Amino acid sequence: MSRNEKELQGVTLLGNQGTKYQFDYRPDVLETFVNKHPDNEYLVTFDCPEFTSLCPKTGQPDFGRIVINYIPRERMVESKSLKLYLFSFRNHGDFHEDCVNIIMKDLIKLMDPKYIEVRGIFNPRGGISIYPFANYGDDQHQDLVKARLLASFDPVKR
Amino acid sequence: MSRNEKELQGVTLLGNQGTKYQFDYRPDVLETFVNKHPDNEYLVTFDCPEFTSLCPKTGQPDFGRIVINYIPRERMVESKSLKLYLFSFRNHGDFHEDCVNIIMKDLIKLMDPKYIEVRGIFNPRGGISIYPFANYGDDQHQDLVKARLLASFDPVKR
Amino acid sequence: MSRNEKELQGVTLLGNQGTKYQFDYRPDVLETFVNKHPDNEYLVTFDCPEFTSLCPKTGQPDFGRIVINYIPRERMVESKSLKLYLFSFRNHGDFHEDCVNIIMKDLIKLMDPKYIEVRGIFNPRGGISIYPFANYGDDQHQDLVKARLLASFDPVKR
Amino acid sequence: MSRNEKELQGVTLLGNQGTKYQFDYRPDVLETFVNKHPDNEYLVTFDCPEFTSLCPKTGQPDFGRIVINYIPRERMVESKSLKLYLFSFRNHGDFHEDCVNIIMKDLIKLMDPKYIEVRGIFNPRGGISIYPFANYGDDQHQDLVKARLLASFDPVKR
Amino acid sequence: MSRNEKELQGVTLLGNQGTKYQFDYRPDVLETFVNKHPDNEYLVTFDCPEFTSLCPKTGQPDFGRIVINYIPRERMVESKSLKLYLFSFRNHGDFHEDCVNIIMKDLIKLMDPKYIEVRGIFNPRGGISIYPFANYGDDQHQDLVKARLLASFDPVKR
Amino acid sequence: MSRNEKELQGVTLLGNQGTKYQFDYRPDVLETFVNKHPDNEYLVTFDCPEFTSLCPKTGQPDFGRIVINYIPRERMVESKSLKLYLFSFRNHGDFHEDCVNIIMKDLIKLMDPKYIEVRGIFNPRGGISIYPFANYGDDQHQDLVKARLLASFDPVKR
Amino acid sequence: MSRNEKELQGVTLLGNQGTKYQFDYRPDVLETFVNKHPDNEYLVTFDCPEFTSLCPKTGQPDFGRIVINYIPRERMVESKSLKLYLFSFRNHGDFHEDCVNIIMKDLIKLMDPKYIEVRGIFNPRGGISIYPFANYGDDQHQDLVKARLLASFDPVKR
Amino acid sequence: MSRNEKELQGVTLLGNQGTKYQFDYRPDVLETFVNKHPDNEYLVTFDCPEFTSLCPKTGQPDFGRIVINYIPRERMVESKSLKLYLFSFRNHGDFHEDCVNIIMKDLIKLMDPKYIEVRGIFNPRGGISIYPFANYGDDQHQDLVKARLLASFDPVKR
Amino acid sequence: MSRNEKELQGVTLLGNQGTKYQFDYRPDVLETFVNKHPDNEYLVTFDCPEFTSLCPKTGQPDFGRIVINYIPRERMVESKSLKLYLFSFRNHGDFHEDCVNIIMKDLIKLMDPKYIEVRGIFNPRGGISIYPFANYGDDQHQDLVKARLLASFDPVKR
Amino acid sequence: MSRNEKELQGVTLLGNQGTKYQFDYRPDVLETFVNKHPDNEYLVTFDCPEFTSLCPKTGQPDFGRIVINYIPRERMVESKSLKLYLFSFRNHGDFHEDCVNIIMKDLIKLMDPKYIEVRGIFNPRGGISIYPFANYGDDQHQDLVKARLLASFDPVKR
Ligand SMILES: [Ca+2]
Ligand SMILES: [Ca+2]
Ligand SMILES: [Ca+2]
Ligand SMILES: [Ca+2]
Ligand SMILES: [Ca+2]
Ligand SMILES: [Ca+2]
Ligand SMILES: [Ca+2]
Ligand SMILES: [Ca+2]
Ligand SMILES: [Ca+2]
Ligand SMILES: [Ca+2]
Ligand SMILES: [Ca+2]
Ligand SMILES: [Ca+2]
Ligand SMILES: [Ca+2]
Ligand SMILES: [Ca+2]
Ligand SMILES: [Ca+2]
Ligand SMILES: [Ca+2]
Repeated sequence: MSRNEKELQGVTLLGNQGTKYQFDYRPDVLETFVNKHPDNEYLVTFDCPEFTSLCPKTGQPDFGRIVINYIPRERMVESKSLKLYLFSFRNHGDFHEDCVNIIMKDLIKLMDPKYIEVRGIFNPRGGISIYPFANYGDDQHQDLVKARLLASFDPVKR
Repeated sequence: MSRNEKELQGVTLLGNQGTKYQFDYRPDVLETFVNKHPDNEYLVTFDCPEFTSLCPKTGQPDFGRIVINYIPRERMVESKSLKLYLFSFRNHGDFHEDCVNIIMKDLIKLMDPKYIEVRGIFNPRGGISIYPFANYGDDQHQDLVKARLLASFDPVKR
Repeated sequence: MSRNEKELQGVTLLGNQGTKYQFDYRPDVLETFVNKHPDNEYLVTFDCPEFTSLCPKTGQPDFGRIVINYIPRERMVESKSLKLYLFSFRNHGDFHEDCVNIIMKDLIKLMDPKYIEVRGIFNPRGGISIYPFANYGDDQHQDLVKARLLASFDPVKR
Repeated sequence: MSRNEKELQGVTLLGNQGTKYQFDYRPDVLETFVNKHPDNEYLVTFDCPEFTSLCPKTGQPDFGRIVINYIPRERMVESKSLKLYLFSFRNHGDFHEDCVNIIMKDLIKLMDPKYIEVRGIFNPRGGISIYPFANYGDDQHQDLVKARLLASFDPVKR
Repeated sequence: MSRNEKELQGVTLLGNQGTKYQFDYRPDVLETFVNKHPDNEYLVTFDCPEFTSLCPKTGQPDFGRIVINYIPRERMVESKSLKLYLFSFRNHGDFHEDCVNIIMKDLIKLMDPKYIEVRGIFNPRGGISIYPFANYGDDQHQDLVKARLLASFDPVKR
Repeated sequence: MSRNEKELQGVTLLGNQGTKYQFDYRPDVLETFVNKHPDNEYLVTFDCPEFTSLCPKTGQPDFGRIVINYIPRERMVESKSLKLYLFSFRNHGDFHEDCVNIIMKDLIKLMDPKYIEVRGIFNPRGGISIYPFANYGDDQHQDLVKARLLASFDPVKR
Repeated sequence: MSRNEKELQGVTLLGNQGTKYQFDYRPDVLETFVNKHPDNEYLVTFDCPEFTSLCPKTGQPDFGRIVINYIPRERMVESKSLKLYLFSFRNHGDFHEDCVNIIMKDLIKLMDPKYIEVRGIFNPRGGISIYPFANYGDDQHQDLVKARLLASFDPVKR
Repeated sequence: MSRNEKELQGVTLLGNQGTKYQFDYRPDVLETFVNKHPDNEYLVTFDCPEFTSLCPKTGQPDFGRIVINYIPRERMVESKSLKLYLFSFRNHGDFHEDCVNIIMKDLIKLMDPKYIEVRGIFNPRGGISIYPFANYGDDQHQDLVKARLLASFDPVKR
Repeated sequence: MSRNEKELQGVTLLGNQGTKYQFDYRPDVLETFVNKHPDNEYLVTFDCPEFTSLCPKTGQPDFGRIVINYIPRERMVESKSLKLYLFSFRNHGDFHEDCVNIIMKDLIKLMDPKYIEVRGIFNPRGGISIYPFANYGDDQHQDLVKARLLASFDPVKR
Repeated sequence: MSRNEKELQGVTLLGNQGTKYQFDYRPDVLETFVNKHPDNEYLVTFDCPEFTSLCPKTGQPDFGRIVINYIPRERMVESKSLKLYLFSFRNHGDFHEDCVNIIMKDLIKLMDPKYIEVRGIFNPRGGISIYPFANYGDDQHQDLVKARLLASFDPVKR
């Protein structure tokens, strides 16, 4: 019942020796594999505590955690390529609020998911922490969009 | 009021000395016993922190926790046989997302539950953790399917 | 405004010197007192981390925590008698799922509550933990029964 | 924009040197100040971990935490007077379930709030902890009364 | 895709060397930048654990944490200016309940957000902690106002 | 191998129905039983989180946790009598530093232990918590006195 | 390099189907296996959170955690037999301080270890918890006996 | 056995109505009372989580926790006066390392303690937290000075 | 100042695409690199929470965490090869106490470290957890061997 | 008593608007200020959770926390310059063990401290975490070097 080679088609980075790490915003490194369970709606969560980018005005490094939840349609993002994509913000400058929206839009374009949300949990600067949250759903998931926005108001508890 | 021998029929692995541990995906080891309280809907949760399988592309071992919630109909899965079933993924290769869907489908086939859900909480690889969640309900439990999918977006808090 | 003697009628175990501890399932030790605030619906929770019973097949001791929530009608269970009742499972053998259902049914019979729920949180055996949850409500509380069942799917967070 | 003297009228205990501590149930020590933001409904929470009273049958001291949530109408309880009121249960004997109902009723009488709830989280006796919860709302807040009762079934997670 | 200079217009405090810290309630220090993702509703959270003000009656310093959640319309508050604004309560006297309402009203005036909420989590005085919570929404977000008020009754869990 | 009646001599409060609770400093309620293992030095710890007394100047109730460690010689304090003794500070006024020293001296007089220490962990007043620690040893345990004093500087970590 | 049959000699309970659970203090159920690494001193810890016994005066069940540390000489206690031994206190009455000393003495007699210590961490009764600690070493380990007694004064931190 | 009026001499701020809060470094507000247990060396700990001062170069507010441990000689610092003293750093500018040394020196001058130590645990700025630790002892406590310096290298664990 | 190719000599597995995972005890997969800072003694810790092996008698999988501390001499173990070595216990049967000793001896043979220790923290079986700890030092580090054995008696705190 | 301008000499980066962030190992950005309390030995701790560097073989980003403890002699490192120095490892490749040694050596060269130690706590790769620890002291602090090395074997507890 394991995935055969055909089902792994398009997955080129996983297990690849010569991985190149790019640090300048490269949405093109993202790869997908096929969803083998399209009949039932299910959820996939990525917890990515190693996100770092630069302040767009001062150039200072910022550090945060990115949490992604999505319901796949036909294609699913491969996790090593997701890691490389997130690493590519390393020397890129943008506000926290912008990074979170950009990541969500890139993943929508890549996978056309039924639903997706992206949360950023950034380390404090000057005693204040910022946690942006953006989400999206197709026409069949507008209720979920509203419900999850409502449920996402308490990241401090983490 | 204890279970008598008849009510324990079909439970062959519990307390059995010669248990054989199989490490190659063996859904046939699953056993059930009869639900003695079928009149009221109730919930059973299994927390299984010792799940391990292999990456389907590189063969590297993965480690995770499997959490199962279900509402029984007539038959209930016996916990020692569930342990043996989960151990049987030990040398089996599959993506995290696939394992979670396979486990759910095997338990549906075994018990025909009114409702069931399976969550995988896998250890990080390359700084990213993956938490798939799949669920299912019969026609009377479609609202529960939607409500639980919505409630399952925050495994990071664990 | 303290409870007078009449309001304490039926409470014979609390403060009693000659308490006898019975270890063989004795639902008859349960005692009640009258609810002095029947006009508004309110909630009482019992957290009982010292529950132990025996496996019905192997006789091995099991350990768990029992959490009870209920909305009283006219009578309320006295907590020392509840302790003695739970202690009486000490040398009694039953599956976790059965114990939880039995406790709930005994308390319904004792108090005729408007609503009640019982959760068991049992220690792991063979790397797996089981958490059964059962609930009940009268005709006016069927919505609560459904809502609480839904809300009880995440005991792992405890 | 600070409170002027008129807006502090009726607040006599705060900053007062000769505070007298009464230990025999004195609801008359409660004081209020005017709500300066009556146009929008908002919430005030008091967390009071230093509550102690006596068992009505044995006289043994009990210890607990009282948590109060309310939506003010025109008057708001001043926190130092609330402290003195809660201290006045020190040598008073009552069941946990009764104390929580009495506190709620006294605060309703004092402030006529739009909504109020009182939770008691008492230390274990004989291995069992009791957590009573009572709430109240005016006609416009009956939905909130139901929703909060439902949301208050899991104090163990605290 | 980074913010260009035009998109950073109005942001004068971030990275500025000669920052002046004002300690006497100065809502005029607040600054905004333009929302680049106005098409989808998203959430921004600020966690500000370094809030301090004075008691309006005794002058004693109070310490607390301020948590702000909002859904932006066209303008967004810049975080360094928010820090300076919150610092300006340092030598200002007001009740906890008043501070939280004032902060919310100032941010509404500044940004005209679709929705906003402010929670204060203040340190205990005399064994009691106070946690006020206020929120606001435009006509399209009245459901959110009610839902978030309901969800905000349990700050003790933090 | 259980304790026989003779070995329980002097233990009059444990299991006693008519327990009288005294709230005015009563060191005479303390009781002891004989140490059945006098040949090897061993340690007994009591953790008592329900201590309350009064401020000697203002009369305000204080709350704290008392932790006692000792090495018995011939007699050992019975835990129910210790509970009654600690309850007897309920309406007694003294500084935290004094209470801790008094408790230690009373237990020395009662048991003549080889070594004893008493720690108080009191709740904050005005934003400051006080944790006094006193200890004592006979001539053979002066090294332990010094070593434990050194080891007791970090109660905050608890 | 695995243990061969000879090296497993004397281990009769592990994997045995017909395990009999005895609840009346049975030190004879303890079994040992040979230490294959006698050349270097090493440490083995057992954490046993499921200990229950009875109060010797009232018969009430007590619950606690037993933690054992030892340095083996030639024989080592097999963990399943240790479990059965600890279960055998289930219906046995003794003070906490006595149980801990008895367990230590039985294990010394069984294994003749170079060093051993036993800690009991018992649940509160009447608001007080008791944690006894006893240890022993042969002539070469008297320094360790003193050092570990000193290090064991802070079980509250657990 | 409570403190009489004579033993409370010099304590003028505790319970005083007209307390004046000074925010400009005022070591003269510190008050003491007499040590009633001078015969045995004991330890007093103050945990003060509400410390705030200003950066000496930029004027920005800093926030931290101050923990003080000392062994009294003849005089002991009264805790309300200590609170007022720490509050007096509110509008004072100095490096964290300097504040900790100044506080220690002021308390030495006030009480002439046998031993004292001061730890500062300051909130992060730019992603870095600073924790200074200073200590002092008279000639009889030089070993304690060294031992405590050594023991104070791991504040991160708090 | 980065490591050049010569300094990376012998490191063949790190970044290697065709990694083969062996599950049958293969100490030969371990690799080392040269210690560039041999002049000062320093410490390296590995925390490996994904260890699994089999019970030597029943064949049941066991799960645990392995923590390694060592002071290098001339060669240092490369972490990816350490991972592969630990993975090779996957289908190997041995007692917990034996695994820990074997791992220590293999690493001594590989690196000839000045000092090394290995701790195993295994999941509970039948309600009991086992934590073996073994250590070794050359002649210059015998004091460290004793001190670390003493310091390793409290793994439960982890 | 604040630092005057002369005492702030050499501190050029703190509060500086035009900060340049360098990402290529720049030990020259480190700055110092004079120690105003050289008479007593005291301790300064820096906790830096935002460290990131590259793997010297694969180029993959690594993330970790750097904790620095030191006893100053005449000069002390200024914390903003320390932040810039640590940020300069951002695009630099080295093993974890090397980074920790390099940081320690640079700070010794900068400040000539009486004692210093550097701990790295790096995120897991392939299921294994590495925590290197290096320390140094002048001739008067060789005992501290040994004592701190011994005390630093348990970073997992953090
Ligand atoms: Ca984070
Ligand atoms: Ca996990
Ligand atoms: Ca959840
Ligand atoms: Ca439990
Ligand atoms: Ca509590
Ligand atoms: Ca809850
Ligand atoms: Ca707070
Ligand atoms: Ca909440
Ligand atoms: Ca406490
Ligand atoms: Ca400590
Ligand atoms: Ca326990
Ligand atoms: Ca300890
Ligand atoms: Ca802090
Ligand atoms: Ca573990
Ligand atoms: Ca870390
Ligand atoms: Ca440590």
